[in-house]
Amino acid sequence: MNIEIDRAGSVPVYKQIRNQIRAFILSGALPPGYRLPPERKLADTLGVNRTTVLNAYRDLRADALIESRVGQGTVVASDCAAPGAAVNPAVPLEWRQLLSESAARMQQPLVSNVLKLANRSDLISFAAGFSATGCDPVAELLETQKRILRDYGSTALQYSATEGHLPLRESLCRLMEGRGIPATPEEVMVLAGSQQGIDLAARILLDPGDRVIVEEPTFFGALQIFQAAGARIIGVPSDRDGMRVDRLQPLLERYKPKFIYSVPTFQNPSGSVLSLERRRQLLDLAYQYHVPVIEDDAYAELRYDGRALPSLKALDQHDHVIYLSSFSKVLFPGLRVGWVAAARPLVRQYVLAKQIADLHTNSLAQWIMDDFLRRGVYAGQVRAVRDANRRSRDRMVAALKRHGLKAVEWFPPEGGLYFWCRLPDSLDQAALVAKAQEEGVVFVPGHIFYPAGGGQNSIRLSFASPAPEQIEPGVRRLMGAIQELLGRDSAGMGEPEGEIRPIL
Amino acid sequence: MNIEIDRAGSVPVYKQIRNQIRAFILSGALPPGYRLPPERKLADTLGVNRTTVLNAYRDLRADALIESRVGQGTVVASDCAAPGAAVNPAVPLEWRQLLSESAARMQQPLVSNVLKLANRSDLISFAAGFSATGCDPVAELLETQKRILRDYGSTALQYSATEGHLPLRESLCRLMEGRGIPATPEEVMVLAGSQQGIDLAARILLDPGDRVIVEEPTFFGALQIFQAAGARIIGVPSDRDGMRVDRLQPLLERYKPKFIYSVPTFQNPSGSVLSLERRRQLLDLAYQYHVPVIEDDAYAELRYDGRALPSLKALDQHDHVIYLSSFSKVLFPGLRVGWVAAARPLVRQYVLAKQIADLHTNSLAQWIMDDFLRRGVYAGQVRAVRDANRRSRDRMVAALKRHGLKAVEWFPPEGGLYFWCRLPDSLDQAALVAKAQEEGVVFVPGHIFYPAGGGQNSIRLSFASPAPEQIEPGVRRLMGAIQELLGRDSAGMGEPEGEIRPIL
Repeated sequence: MNIEIDRAGSVPVYKQIRNQIRAFILSGALPPGYRLPPERKLADTLGVNRTTVLNAYRDLRADALIESRVGQGTVVASDCAAPGAAVNPAVPLEWRQLLSESAARMQQPLVSNVLKLANRSDLISFAAGFSATGCDPVAELLETQKRILRDYGSTALQYSATEGHLPLRESLCRLMEGRGIPATPEEVMVLAGSQQGIDLAARILLDPGDRVIVEEPTFFGALQIFQAAGARIIGVPSDRDGMRVDRLQPLLERYKPKFIYSVPTFQNPSGSVLSLERRRQLLDLAYQYHVPVIEDDAYAELRYDGRALPSLKALDQHDHVIYLSSFSKVLFPGLRVGWVAAARPLVRQYVLAKQIADLHTNSLAQWIMDDFLRRGVYAGQVRAVRDANRRSRDRMVAALKRHGLKAVEWFPPEGGLYFWCRLPDSLDQAALVAKAQEEGVVFVPGHIFYPAGGGQNSIRLSFASPAPEQIEPGVRRLMGAIQELLGRDSAGMGEPEGEIRPIL
Repeated sequence: MNIEIDRAGSVPVYKQIRNQIRAFILSGALPPGYRLPPERKLADTLGVNRTTVLNAYRDLRADALIESRVGQGTVVASDCAAPGAAVNPAVPLEWRQLLSESAARMQQPLVSNVLKLANRSDLISFAAGFSATGCDPVAELLETQKRILRDYGSTALQYSATEGHLPLRESLCRLMEGRGIPATPEEVMVLAGSQQGIDLAARILLDPGDRVIVEEPTFFGALQIFQAAGARIIGVPSDRDGMRVDRLQPLLERYKPKFIYSVPTFQNPSGSVLSLERRRQLLDLAYQYHVPVIEDDAYAELRYDGRALPSLKALDQHDHVIYLSSFSKVLFPGLRVGWVAAARPLVRQYVLAKQIADLHTNSLAQWIMDDFLRRGVYAGQVRAVRDANRRSRDRMVAALKRHGLKAVEWFPPEGGLYFWCRLPDSLDQAALVAKAQEEGVVFVPGHIFYPAGGGQNSIRLSFASPAPEQIEPGVRRLMGAIQELLGRDSAGMGEPEGEIRPIL
């Protein structure tokens, strides 16, 4: 019985001893009836305190792996043979063969990887879709929690209703009221982020083979969800005014989709805004073809200039729009709070699906968001984030004007988090990703936003997540990488361009 | 244009005006070109400040619903006809017809209802499965957060990795190490509660029509998940020593299930503990038939007396066990943190599925739980919860001995949260649920824990969630209700019974 002890490790020594003896017993190396060394002797052998061995033996005894026998001391218990060891040697499971069809359709975790890289302080990241303003109301958060826990005790830490904390749903109704959306609390369910709202929509509306219409390009997370659901994803081309609604009717006619998924305002990844006329046309077609529209309005608050447009939900007169929104682009994305507003029968179905998925959203986070909404902390943060993001966008514009290449096309978005840049077709995007990372810059390659090919000559640059002072050097290095890959012949460092051309 | 103002309501008056005019315009009641009253005049008519009307008009102008024309004042904008209003009157969507097959399989929200009733202070609830000790470390929570936010800034409030906060995964490995389970952080993923772990397992392992084996009775939430996934659920009978493993082999042979779902320790709802011998036999069969076992170990910490048994995962030598556990039965269930430990390839697939479902678990909750584990707050809370729950269990035993009826069979569980009581077959359970609620007592009827009929003569009583002083009156009222339903002839108030009979 050869026991090795790692005194530098974090595992207490008695547990190391216990675990190794347990493994010997379960593997059959120590057979039933085997006499273990007396505690004092083993302690001497291993150079440990006797209590340490006593504790290890106590645990093994509690697990019924060893027992004390009169006249024999401590022995391996008689019913301890390794399960199955003698009968049939077990083979490792082939997990891949056990996977469901849905699992087989789940894509590689690109977003996970982006999130990981985004936290690396040695890289300049234009990859992550969040606002890093440096002015999060952290002190307010602590104050708020103190008050919540004082006033409500640990109720805010207990299980809560699947549809969400009622006061928060009331606050969300007032928030949406300010966005021109009338809704009652019964038409609202709290989500663990608006991503969950897309996923639950897929679960309650999609069967494998169903068709879904999306803008091309569109939010990568939505594509992942629809692919995993086995849906056939139909892309509609888009331009700077959002989805080309004029191309929509023949697709509705032909494919009879289960729903249309749209990010009409400050679209991810393109930064485009669906024009008011197109919003009306889109709803018209939805009514005509009896197709619901999932409106992903995560960026609702992030307008930096220009005129606000009503959301599809605000324009919708016939309950065809399933409205998703989130706090994550303004405030504490790690708390994972979003919501859905839709017709009551659909919200009831959402509640059933959410109960199955995770019972309910983190209670404390809901109480906090409710308090922030009621006391105007949220509204103040919206203003702060808008100001910070506007400055970052303007820095990005300046950097692109200064270091940009003639061959790289872009336009300054009126809101949201993204620049969508078109590169020369000749550029190898995989090579650019690698080259940029060498130069310490991360971004998201465009092709992932297309359901069925495309985007090889586009990249998405998020301007709100890097520190403001990183934007200029980041753009410089990225453009340097592009320049180098293009070679000296095909493009020269451009002078700042007077005119900015739309790219979509 | 008849505008009504509710001065007592929470909606600012200018928004009330704006919304009503918006509705008039979008419905077509105010046609394009219609001249709105001058601001001052409307203010006089409505008896409001002129600024109020100015603000309403400003919003409507921003939404492009009205415009100013020279010589005409303010008019309804020319492109504002209600979408689709003229062309084709929209009909409401028939949501039910749009639902997926999975949605159609989702059951009524019984657990939601239980959670709602469980929070009603006027009822004595034996329904909810949580520990309400009154000794939650709320002050510790605030202190911990203060330190986290001081040391890590708002990183703990940002997006984080899908697989979970690495330090927490390391802490979980140490916690499991104490349970005899060796695991590396790569074999662990953090969940939004262990319910999510069952749901994600269903998503990555089950296709409609696949077979799943469960104990009969078993956790209602798991049944909901497997039903929604379209699985065929095969029940194995169980007794006080847990699953009748001797009945398992023919089922494995015949049905070739995708996995076995088991709650071996302090089972929900039966309170049973799978014996060590049966644990070994279960693993043997899993190896022999190449079937994974999902071990739901939510109650791991809640042993009040008797000898601890190793978990299936601790006994598993061949990575067949998918181990789920949770903080929710010990500490702050509203924070929704659980975890899965399994073979690496399966955990990778879990990460893909979780990314699709909700990106990641609430970051702050993960940082808190990590800190609680490292500083021993969790271990202290385990001790406190065990002591409190043990006392509640003993109160329940005393109350059942005092007020129990001969016709009601039960046994005192060694741990967990539940008494499983068998009632006379002649009793109408629906009538009892109603009668008990009249008497102010809530419990969970047994039939919901059975996949395909059964349990009509059993009920689950949770002893840890009611206040200790409610247990005795709750049991008294419940037994009174049973007594009344049974009628005077069929049973009498029994004397305390010397012997307690197993019921399963």
